[in-house]
Amino acid sequence: MTKEEILEILAIARAIKSGALRPKMRAKSLAMIFEKSSTRTRVSFEMGAAQLGMHPLFLSSKDIQLGRGEPMKDTARVISRMVDMVMIRTFAHSRLEEFATHSLVPVINGLSDDFHPAQLMADFMTLQELGLDKDPIVTWIGDGNNMANSLLMLASKLGFELRIATPKGYEIASRWIETAWGFAKESGAKLRFGNDPKEMIRSANAVFTDVWTSMGQEAQNEKRLNDFKGFGLDDELFSLADKNAALLHCLPAHRGEEVSDKLFEAHSDTIFLEAENRLHAQKGIMVWLDRHAKERAK
Amino acid sequence: MTKEEILEILAIARAIKSGALRPKMRAKSLAMIFEKSSTRTRVSFEMGAAQLGMHPLFLSSKDIQLGRGEPMKDTARVISRMVDMVMIRTFAHSRLEEFATHSLVPVINGLSDDFHPAQLMADFMTLQELGLDKDPIVTWIGDGNNMANSLLMLASKLGFELRIATPKGYEIASRWIETAWGFAKESGAKLRFGNDPKEMIRSANAVFTDVWTSMGQEAQNEKRLNDFKGFGLDDELFSLADKNAALLHCLPAHRGEEVSDKLFEAHSDTIFLEAENRLHAQKGIMVWLDRHAKERAK
Amino acid sequence: MTKEEILEILAIARAIKSGALRPKMRAKSLAMIFEKSSTRTRVSFEMGAAQLGMHPLFLSSKDIQLGRGEPMKDTARVISRMVDMVMIRTFAHSRLEEFATHSLVPVINGLSDDFHPAQLMADFMTLQELGLDKDPIVTWIGDGNNMANSLLMLASKLGFELRIATPKGYEIASRWIETAWGFAKESGAKLRFGNDPKEMIRSANAVFTDVWTSMGQEAQNEKRLNDFKGFGLDDELFSLADKNAALLHCLPAHRGEEVSDKLFEAHSDTIFLEAENRLHAQKGIMVWLDRHAKERAK
Repeated sequence: MTKEEILEILAIARAIKSGALRPKMRAKSLAMIFEKSSTRTRVSFEMGAAQLGMHPLFLSSKDIQLGRGEPMKDTARVISRMVDMVMIRTFAHSRLEEFATHSLVPVINGLSDDFHPAQLMADFMTLQELGLDKDPIVTWIGDGNNMANSLLMLASKLGFELRIATPKGYEIASRWIETAWGFAKESGAKLRFGNDPKEMIRSANAVFTDVWTSMGQEAQNEKRLNDFKGFGLDDELFSLADKNAALLHCLPAHRGEEVSDKLFEAHSDTIFLEAENRLHAQKGIMVWLDRHAKERAK
Repeated sequence: MTKEEILEILAIARAIKSGALRPKMRAKSLAMIFEKSSTRTRVSFEMGAAQLGMHPLFLSSKDIQLGRGEPMKDTARVISRMVDMVMIRTFAHSRLEEFATHSLVPVINGLSDDFHPAQLMADFMTLQELGLDKDPIVTWIGDGNNMANSLLMLASKLGFELRIATPKGYEIASRWIETAWGFAKESGAKLRFGNDPKEMIRSANAVFTDVWTSMGQEAQNEKRLNDFKGFGLDDELFSLADKNAALLHCLPAHRGEEVSDKLFEAHSDTIFLEAENRLHAQKGIMVWLDRHAKERAK
Repeated sequence: MTKEEILEILAIARAIKSGALRPKMRAKSLAMIFEKSSTRTRVSFEMGAAQLGMHPLFLSSKDIQLGRGEPMKDTARVISRMVDMVMIRTFAHSRLEEFATHSLVPVINGLSDDFHPAQLMADFMTLQELGLDKDPIVTWIGDGNNMANSLLMLASKLGFELRIATPKGYEIASRWIETAWGFAKESGAKLRFGNDPKEMIRSANAVFTDVWTSMGQEAQNEKRLNDFKGFGLDDELFSLADKNAALLHCLPAHRGEEVSDKLFEAHSDTIFLEAENRLHAQKGIMVWLDRHAKERAK
């Protein structure tokens, strides 16, 4: 997506939230396929679709034939003949791409091992509402995971300064860094990568973190707890950021690991605003897809 | 809840059932969180919400992050920003209370280890329809479980006579008995507790029972079958009740244990009326909450 | 069902698909009980119900008390008091019949170990759209399973020629063959049963196949792979059919087993048309049931 497209989706989302825009997509439907468990993605897409007048169809991989090994491309060809949009939460990003290749309708990434763009739309919307969207310094402290990748793509496209601090061995994959530098050349984004959270957080306007052990990595939990020492956000580390800095967390939070309970609760207004913005941002995505599907059909 | 509030909910429920009241709660939503399996609670709340025009959102703990250990208070703060009401079926009652403490919207107990009030609303509605709600003698035969606790609260608040017969060791917890005596002082309810089902059932107008082994207690099943000998309702034991006595059962029923197949089927009209009344009673609860939420907002 | 009833349902389904008929069943509901996983049945019934304005209620046996051993007859008596129609996917056909016996509302077979009629409605609708419904020669290659049984019932009622080729030991049960001959006497259907796929496929206008190992038979998989040698459809075997023959498959497909990838993809337009027709055919069933329920109520 281009910078303009991203900002257009967010403008729709904010207009819906404020009540200025009341789009209706009656008789439309959204299938939501979950291969991993989910609270925020599930509730925000289901409620968003329902509030738009759509029928949301929740499909857990436990309940459908995907769980019995039906190829993604067959499932895609069947489901996309019966619904208007599909959202997928899966493990390997290639599964999402295979579905999208064979789907007749738009497919939304509801989180893969590589990216979580639906979350990032809510995150940047939150920065907009906090007045932190104009040339902010944004710092990521933690794992070089799908959230970090997505934040990197966002910064490199929108053109703001992003500093990513990960422990050694948990850096963002070099192919995504190369992709991001390509986008940054055009947008003017400043990108920094390092292993020292104290250096990276200094003067930041917004600090993002996430759990150290994501779904599917539970076996590595003990090793990760050790490797991520020093990357836990607490009052001391956070005090190095700008004095008005916002703390964002996509949840769920593991208190005492990536964030202290005290710091989390001090920033809970922002964090739960960010969570609520999933609802509005997800509506923005669906309304945007519907508009552009109509334009393409003309 | 007060006696007046309980009767108000039931009046709404009966008016909806008769068609005299046709409330609509369009654009509203109910999240239903299930940590235990459910047929009647699930179908009655989901269909009730749908018939009121609401969007019902079914969340199994297997499908959401609660299953991955997210604290109740975080889940509450997220979900309650996206929906208008929440119903929870859980194990420890404290989980329900923690959710309610942090929720921005009303939370309905859809069964906890301590209480099952949504069922009791349907039960008393059934007594009303059978003309058994004026100073009845009500007897509970069986486990001192969440259903017994709830019936005790209902009797002590509404002021009718309740006799509870449980095997030794399965009595209602003393703290609930004390609470009930407090309510009874005001309402005039007569409460009796004992271990002899024959004594307790004599002249009863309505007899309640429930399975001996509830969800989560399966490991104790054999011991319980033994301890509950003599508490199984059959024609002989039931003949001691009033000759027009009603038999109520919240289901599922284990024939040959708490109730004989013959007695169950002889009273199946009442028992399935009671089950159907879940639908109407649950609508009564949701409409009542919506009304009072509006009043509070004024 | 009679031939006339089957054709009436399909006429409704085609009229809905073309837009000529736009039936609405607002305030109605469909409970869908799944004891086995499902993609096409789930999505087609849920979307079909939603598009008709009904509330579809998805009940997995994992989530309801059926999973805890509640008798079908009790579940039937409860659920049928709260919804307008029920669809069940189960194992033993007797469970479906027990539910239907005790249900107050129509019950749709969404697949049992014996029959899968909802699929067959989509299949014959597809033959109608392909112009292959007038006296076709239809061949079944594969297991004598629920799909084969259902196709046999359809052919023997509608009166077309059906040839069934199964490996030895996998023939259709003799009681269904007897039943079918009874229907065939009236309809004039020509029925042939054998163990040689090459003989049976010759000049066929439509060829049906299905997986060799159905849900619940996974332990027999290796033996079945061996026993079904020679029954896999590929270009060579299929070349014996009529040169314009259609290939139908109810999905999911196991490429390299019952059908080669090349043959499957060459016929994918038909196969996914057949899948999409589930949506329309399922609406046809629900609208037909609603009409006839109203007539009976008059």
